Amino acid sequence: MFNPSQQGYIPQISIDCVIFGYQNKQLQVLVSKLNLEGNFMSLAGGFIHQNEDVDTAAYRIVQQRMGISEIYLDQFYVFGKASRNNIGFIEKVMELNTSTFQSKSETIQTYDWFNNRFISIGYYALVDISSVLPPKDNANQQTGWYNIKNMPELIMDHNDIVSKALESLRQNLDQKLIAFNLLPETFTMKEVQELYEAILDRPFARNNFQKKILDLGVLQRLEKKFTGAANKAPYLYRLKKDNTN
Amino acid sequence: MFNPSQQGYIPQISIDCVIFGYQNKQLQVLVSKLNLEGNFMSLAGGFIHQNEDVDTAAYRIVQQRMGISEIYLDQFYVFGKASRNNIGFIEKVMELNTSTFQSKSETIQTYDWFNNRFISIGYYALVDISSVLPPKDNANQQTGWYNIKNMPELIMDHNDIVSKALESLRQNLDQKLIAFNLLPETFTMKEVQELYEAILDRPFARNNFQKKILDLGVLQRLEKKFTGAANKAPYLYRLKKDNTN
Repeated sequence: MFNPSQQGYIPQISIDCVIFGYQNKQLQVLVSKLNLEGNFMSLAGGFIHQNEDVDTAAYRIVQQRMGISEIYLDQFYVFGKASRNNIGFIEKVMELNTSTFQSKSETIQTYDWFNNRFISIGYYALVDISSVLPPKDNANQQTGWYNIKNMPELIMDHNDIVSKALESLRQNLDQKLIAFNLLPETFTMKEVQELYEAILDRPFARNNFQKKILDLGVLQRLEKKFTGAANKAPYLYRLKKDNTN
Repeated sequence: MFNPSQQGYIPQISIDCVIFGYQNKQLQVLVSKLNLEGNFMSLAGGFIHQNEDVDTAAYRIVQQRMGISEIYLDQFYVFGKASRNNIGFIEKVMELNTSTFQSKSETIQTYDWFNNRFISIGYYALVDISSVLPPKDNANQQTGWYNIKNMPELIMDHNDIVSKALESLRQNLDQKLIAFNLLPETFTMKEVQELYEAILDRPFARNNFQKKILDLGVLQRLEKKFTGAANKAPYLYRLKKDNTN
């Protein structure tokens, strides 16, 4: 059993990562089932070693929990309510997993570690689901993508963390250009529009949308896409080189 | 002497607040001199009580350290490098303030508290300097505004925290409309342009700037400003009501 009190972690601080995916014109979130008795569905969460940068810890946690390493994580919010703790969650875990604790003192240590208020630093990432390799190291954890409109019940306040991450993603969509990470190197305006519609969950009028995106000043227009029907072929675009982040 | 180890604070987490001010077309930062021997210039920083929301702690710290309560604070970044600690700072403080510690054990407790890595949660605010009342409770601390282009040397990594806050402010300028908090209820386009120029530290062409701002779709045009010279009078604007945040 994981005994965090003996691992040299900073107490009372955690990290939770919301991995957004895009596939078939749908926005989805990566969730894993904890390797425990009981149906505990969770974001990629964990703790920070005393000698580890917070950003490094976030990448390690996503690698360990989700098996994903090629990813760009961004801080989006600190969840710092005084009432935020693991008590309800850890009591349920201990009730359903009595046999996994090796000793009573280990149980008490683990409980004492969790039985505190935790401040959680939220990170998010946007990935192209088709380019993410299936997780390798965590086959037992039943990692999977869930449509953001139909999320399962997650542990603790993880559903709220997803909502806040979506809000931040929407607010930062134009400014950070993160959405373009989800598209191939060249793309049509229609593909950009579908992506924006999935993230913002509302339709756009084609002409207004095109103007809005071109006004960002970050796209370079290329040749027309080859479709066989020359007249109706849409233009291809790509991000200007100095905009990639 | 402040002995944080006995105050029921969460260990290893701090808060640092960057208060930006705007006056005479200049962007400035509020800094206080710590009430200690030695020239320690600092942002409004402090710690979080075990039973206190992180946001509440940020407001309390700004109130206690700067004497300002009418303010809107926003999280902007978590400073989480493993190498981030107070050791150099606290050693200097103790060297110059030996008489303020009441006992050797208190000195050791205080040192032990600080002699750890600290993760700091950064907040910023933008205030209209002329509307901020002079600090009352901290007369000894020599609180003052400094032009952001000519900052004094601050303790620890506080100068870097100011730089990062400025970067975040610039990135969020359009999206969060925070800059408009600095203007009176009605304002001219020239006043908006001067404010943007102060924050972004670059000039804008008048016509392009006006178009960019009007395209945000957040302003309502009112009557012309009365200047006595009707023809040249500029229009007044105000924020549309549903945009205030």
